[in-house]
Amino acid sequence: MHNQTVVDLRIDADWIVPVEPAGMVLEHHSLIVGENKIQDILPSHEADTRYLFRERIRLPGHALIPGLVNLHGHAAMALLRGFADDLPLMSWLNERIWPAESRWLSPEFTLDGSRLACLEMLKGGITCFNDMYFFPDATIEAALEARMRVAAGIIAIDFASAWAADPDGYLQKGMEIRDAYRDQPLVSFCLAPHAPYSCGDKTLEKVQTLADQLDLPIHMHVHETHEEIHQSIERFKVRPLERLRRLGLLGPQFIGVHAVHLLDEEIALLAEQGCHIAHCPTSNLKLGSGVAPKTKLLEANINVGVGTDSAASNNRLDVFAEMRLAALLAKGISGRANAVPAHTALAMATLNGAKALGLDGQIGSLTPGKQADIVAVDLSGAATQPCYDPISQLVYSAGRDQVRHVWVAGEMVVKDGRCLSLDETAIVRRAHQWREKIAAGQVETKIVQN
Amino acid sequence: MHNQTVVDLRIDADWIVPVEPAGMVLEHHSLIVGENKIQDILPSHEADTRYLFRERIRLPGHALIPGLVNLHGHAAMALLRGFADDLPLMSWLNERIWPAESRWLSPEFTLDGSRLACLEMLKGGITCFNDMYFFPDATIEAALEARMRVAAGIIAIDFASAWAADPDGYLQKGMEIRDAYRDQPLVSFCLAPHAPYSCGDKTLEKVQTLADQLDLPIHMHVHETHEEIHQSIERFKVRPLERLRRLGLLGPQFIGVHAVHLLDEEIALLAEQGCHIAHCPTSNLKLGSGVAPKTKLLEANINVGVGTDSAASNNRLDVFAEMRLAALLAKGISGRANAVPAHTALAMATLNGAKALGLDGQIGSLTPGKQADIVAVDLSGAATQPCYDPISQLVYSAGRDQVRHVWVAGEMVVKDGRCLSLDETAIVRRAHQWREKIAAGQVETKIVQN
Repeated sequence: MHNQTVVDLRIDADWIVPVEPAGMVLEHHSLIVGENKIQDILPSHEADTRYLFRERIRLPGHALIPGLVNLHGHAAMALLRGFADDLPLMSWLNERIWPAESRWLSPEFTLDGSRLACLEMLKGGITCFNDMYFFPDATIEAALEARMRVAAGIIAIDFASAWAADPDGYLQKGMEIRDAYRDQPLVSFCLAPHAPYSCGDKTLEKVQTLADQLDLPIHMHVHETHEEIHQSIERFKVRPLERLRRLGLLGPQFIGVHAVHLLDEEIALLAEQGCHIAHCPTSNLKLGSGVAPKTKLLEANINVGVGTDSAASNNRLDVFAEMRLAALLAKGISGRANAVPAHTALAMATLNGAKALGLDGQIGSLTPGKQADIVAVDLSGAATQPCYDPISQLVYSAGRDQVRHVWVAGEMVVKDGRCLSLDETAIVRRAHQWREKIAAGQVETKIVQN
Repeated sequence: MHNQTVVDLRIDADWIVPVEPAGMVLEHHSLIVGENKIQDILPSHEADTRYLFRERIRLPGHALIPGLVNLHGHAAMALLRGFADDLPLMSWLNERIWPAESRWLSPEFTLDGSRLACLEMLKGGITCFNDMYFFPDATIEAALEARMRVAAGIIAIDFASAWAADPDGYLQKGMEIRDAYRDQPLVSFCLAPHAPYSCGDKTLEKVQTLADQLDLPIHMHVHETHEEIHQSIERFKVRPLERLRRLGLLGPQFIGVHAVHLLDEEIALLAEQGCHIAHCPTSNLKLGSGVAPKTKLLEANINVGVGTDSAASNNRLDVFAEMRLAALLAKGISGRANAVPAHTALAMATLNGAKALGLDGQIGSLTPGKQADIVAVDLSGAATQPCYDPISQLVYSAGRDQVRHVWVAGEMVVKDGRCLSLDETAIVRRAHQWREKIAAGQVETKIVQN
């Protein structure tokens, strides 16, 4: 008889998809959790002799995957889901979203919207999200209530909001929040200058200085629309990426969001600088922005993760949908059905996002020593039968509704599809109240305009 | 006190989206069902005085929509879901799908596969599907067990299969099946010549003659890939659509499936001939075929419905996903965020499909006098809150997992997300058995090839 180690949890599943190494599927293995971490992954019959466990969960017909990483979003905007559909980016921003925000933005708005978003994301297998919004402390509070990971954006933008008056105010408040939450293991930070068209050179220089001093990633919208590029050429005589290069923002700490419109030399530049891309295919289609050249980006060995963007431009905070669409678009646009195979799409939705955030030492794959951020997906129902290849089923057939259990840092936060950490009834009630106020506000605005 | 009519069923929902007229949303109305049909739709307070009902269902937070119409698929191929992913159409067909079919095709294969597909479709709100496959009588049997509508394809193809030896055999057997099921109210028929590259002129001439004699729609793959078009030019000196025009196949009875690669004059031809298009966006992307010019097709006033294609090239039989992707692609590819607004996408998934099948007098919208094919979608959960616009939520936010109840011809076939008409456990067990056989067959094939 072996000397048995006592651990917190043993999970047995028909399939474990660790994501690292790429494409591997482990059949009838057990995942061992202890002290918030993945301690071991081994054949179930070996687990019987090696470990004693406080809890054991048997999941026949299920696949275990790493928690999904949502590499770009604005969680609080869940309160504006479906508020302004079928509009192009600039009208969407200038005519609907920014006016509504200027009227309603507050710590309560951000807290209630972020709770709604965290609830949707966690139930859908997202355990970590990279956020950019006003009142980031309220979004952090929501994430901590949900007990999920957040990479909080230290937002900077050249116009005043209810959150801050000017770029220095944004950055100073962001720094204070970073100091306040720096000991929270579930919280990390990115500097988040909104976009080239909303941040002047001074703002971006300060962001760059802070990024260097504090060794923080920079999370920024870039090359989302042709209009943005034309504006930059008019105002700065260069395209946005070239401007960012001159300001020294590009590098391995840079996460460019969208990157829909890129010249080949700009793809080469991103590769050479070691930048990361947050690919948001649904949002780019829905706002009429286009399709990012993800096949070229991947061929250039650029690290590409996926993001939902906000519920106001998607309108689902669903990384299962994004990874599937990323794979489908790569094939359909390149004309090559083997572009972005299923295991690559799954890596984009997990490990690649973790790499971009500098968190791949802790999360992004089911690897002993990493945090136990785990999603159990039920593949036993009609919609994912028969199962010839679990990775293919996860990417092309499964939906977030098949997420059964979710663990973050070893703690079960979703059980049998129900979120244990948040109160769905209360969160939905608050969403109803916001809808009444915001919709009424719209009516008034319309009357005023007549 | 009025004289009250006694009816079978009254459904109260927060929103009724009849699809006709376009974009209409009725709040706090009741839908009245009697004798398999929609008898009335009226404000709930009026329903109180006008009707007595045997059953009443109250659905707060729900929207009622017409049953979804899946305008193109091969139901039985659900048994090959995920069997051959990340391959282009011609290798997918020639190297994987056709060899597997030639080995496994049988009435049992078609029956078991069709049951699996019907279960998935019905739970996802699809109440009518247009099918093309071998042993169509087995698919009809599965649809009748499920108690859903099927437009069965009288398939014709120039190669032998377990189902028939030659085109005359295919057509003759199809005619016999049509005679056998002609009195089934849930069953209709289309002539289904497989594709221009798999049907010679003789076959197509016979199909056209039958279509004229029997006044049947023609359901056919067309212009799916560049390769197919080049082959046609080599073999027939013209592109496939021109060949079909010369053979007299084009007209208001013609349902062209895919139509990915079209010249402007071909779009004009389809419009002038009153043809219908079955748009299958996921399948076209996944096989690397491309993106159909749906914005141009709609601008030419061509009737466009949506189809899932088979689970071997999609891999979800999910019309919610197809209508969403159809709307998103139209915006992203045209660069116009207002292209294919939500209500147009919903019409593509319902009324337009019914029109193509010649069934719009019976189904496709919630209209008094039409069959009671109704889907209740639960919009009350976090993922579809807040709800500013129910049509926007249905298309951009909701998923098939929010389908709560489904009625076909007034009969409840899905209740609280469970299919009442089919045995999910038995169907999944059979899918497992087929997987064992087919996967084993693959291994043998591989060994033989070594």
